[in-house]
Amino acid sequence: MIDLDPRHDRIAAPLGEALGSVATIFEGQIRSEYPAVADLCTHVARYRGKMLRPTLTLLSGVAARGGDVTVLESHDLQRLAAVVEMIHMATLVHDDVLDEADDRRGGSTVNSLRGNETAVMLGDYLISNAFHLAASIGDADLTERLGRVTNTLCEGELVQLHHRDDLGLDFQTYLEIIRRKTAVLVGACGRLGGRVAGGEEATCEALGEFGERLGIAFQVVDDILDLEGDLETVGKTVGLDLRKGKLTLPMILLLDGSDASVFVDAVESFRSGDSTGLLKMLRESDAIDRARAFAVEQVEAAIVSINGFDLGDSQDLLRDLAAAVVERNH
Amino acid sequence: MIDLDPRHDRIAAPLGEALGSVATIFEGQIRSEYPAVADLCTHVARYRGKMLRPTLTLLSGVAARGGDVTVLESHDLQRLAAVVEMIHMATLVHDDVLDEADDRRGGSTVNSLRGNETAVMLGDYLISNAFHLAASIGDADLTERLGRVTNTLCEGELVQLHHRDDLGLDFQTYLEIIRRKTAVLVGACGRLGGRVAGGEEATCEALGEFGERLGIAFQVVDDILDLEGDLETVGKTVGLDLRKGKLTLPMILLLDGSDASVFVDAVESFRSGDSTGLLKMLRESDAIDRARAFAVEQVEAAIVSINGFDLGDSQDLLRDLAAAVVERNH
Repeated sequence: MIDLDPRHDRIAAPLGEALGSVATIFEGQIRSEYPAVADLCTHVARYRGKMLRPTLTLLSGVAARGGDVTVLESHDLQRLAAVVEMIHMATLVHDDVLDEADDRRGGSTVNSLRGNETAVMLGDYLISNAFHLAASIGDADLTERLGRVTNTLCEGELVQLHHRDDLGLDFQTYLEIIRRKTAVLVGACGRLGGRVAGGEEATCEALGEFGERLGIAFQVVDDILDLEGDLETVGKTVGLDLRKGKLTLPMILLLDGSDASVFVDAVESFRSGDSTGLLKMLRESDAIDRARAFAVEQVEAAIVSINGFDLGDSQDLLRDLAAAVVERNH
Repeated sequence: MIDLDPRHDRIAAPLGEALGSVATIFEGQIRSEYPAVADLCTHVARYRGKMLRPTLTLLSGVAARGGDVTVLESHDLQRLAAVVEMIHMATLVHDDVLDEADDRRGGSTVNSLRGNETAVMLGDYLISNAFHLAASIGDADLTERLGRVTNTLCEGELVQLHHRDDLGLDFQTYLEIIRRKTAVLVGACGRLGGRVAGGEEATCEALGEFGERLGIAFQVVDDILDLEGDLETVGKTVGLDLRKGKLTLPMILLLDGSDASVFVDAVESFRSGDSTGLLKMLRESDAIDRARAFAVEQVEAAIVSINGFDLGDSQDLLRDLAAAVVERNH
């Protein structure tokens, strides 16, 4: 879970309690009478890490009501928070199949333990349960919006797959891919969290914008960690993006800003699958720093987007949350 | 599409038109501005075969209103029919990944053409769009019911995967697996088709029961075709179940009804992956005939379940539909 400054205990304490309820709703939803299914669900529940999405959902509910913490008791808001986490979890399970990854949050991935087939079907089970739980809130329009979010998410993943091994991938296309595959869901946490709590349209939009910017920053940092992190700290297989031919921001910046000889070397290393050589080039260039600077800019823009709204002291927590996204090392 | 007797033209003609609208809704829903995604969708649209599920959905709408064909113009009913087909299509795409199949409805599978990763994500895109389309009908309770159906479907697939290579799989467990993974969705076509058309509760329940029985029969016939069909007629890779260690009804009946020496031979062939030997044993025994007899019984029970309701002449079409399920050779 994301550490929140104890000076924010007025909100942080009930928020922690609400996150506990979210976990209970999550586990109750995917419960199965079949031991084979139940075991898989228990395994997947361990993937729950920072709980960024449910935290942002709940906090956006509080913010949209000017800092009123009683909205944290709303069963609908808690269910929405469980829904977004479940969607996220489903993407993790399927991403691991896509990436042929072995490690996730310090444990083994479902695909490496039980095979791709079970991982595909378990991901489907999570997606299905997410929609079922969303529909049980009883607001057809909310479910429709969530459906649009996941359509966009899947499109982002498909476009990313299409650009695998594509050295011509440019910054704009990369940005559009990560907006779709990551940021739109994080944006929905802000926007729909505010909405379910009964916030005003303009405030919900601002929270949506905040979330989307945060999502962009989060993905860029994720992509950086894949390059420079180590398995022990990051808790998942690293260096995968390059091995799978996935160009991310540092690599795009390296190719874009480098002189001819560096460019040729980088392309050569990429094509021959020499990820060690590429990592060295990336670390010696300023590409990773420039990527991180871009993430910081996005976080700053996120914070600006919620200025001027009466969010009470939840504004400080949202700022902390935003800062934590770029400061994290896992 | 399923051939309907021309003497039923009063219903069959507008039904055919409505199925055309369903195809248009289907294609419009999954349309993407990204050529990479659009190409995949065009490929998948070719998987549309018998249209059993949308046909049953539309026909159940007519039946639930005593044979009133004007319900076929209902946009909600047509959307529901597109939703169930989309859910089915998503399961086909993911099943092909699970089965490592190369052929589907006379064409190549997505996984064999574009890799498992794209197939996984395309299946997700279809599931997501199915829910989005369902939610756009604006009936939260309907979406919730559909979510429950797909939860059950995924559980069925997971339980089936769990029993792979399990020679102890018994008839009851097999039945429960196919009920979940196939019959519950076909049942939903009847039940929810009737419901969206505004039918009475008891009639919708009867149509649901009809669909569920039909779904069981359909799956048993599918399992038989995998054993005795040939690629050209069936249009998809055959003999896969045995190769993937999946026991289906004929095999369960062979093991269950055979004397000790046959039993030992069958187990031996199964364990050593000798599918040719097993096929020979199955064809020489009465196991396939007994499995087919079970499917016929289910169809008869399906027909009985809608007796006594005033479905007008749509009752005859439902009977034809049921008969077509066991008479098919592809």
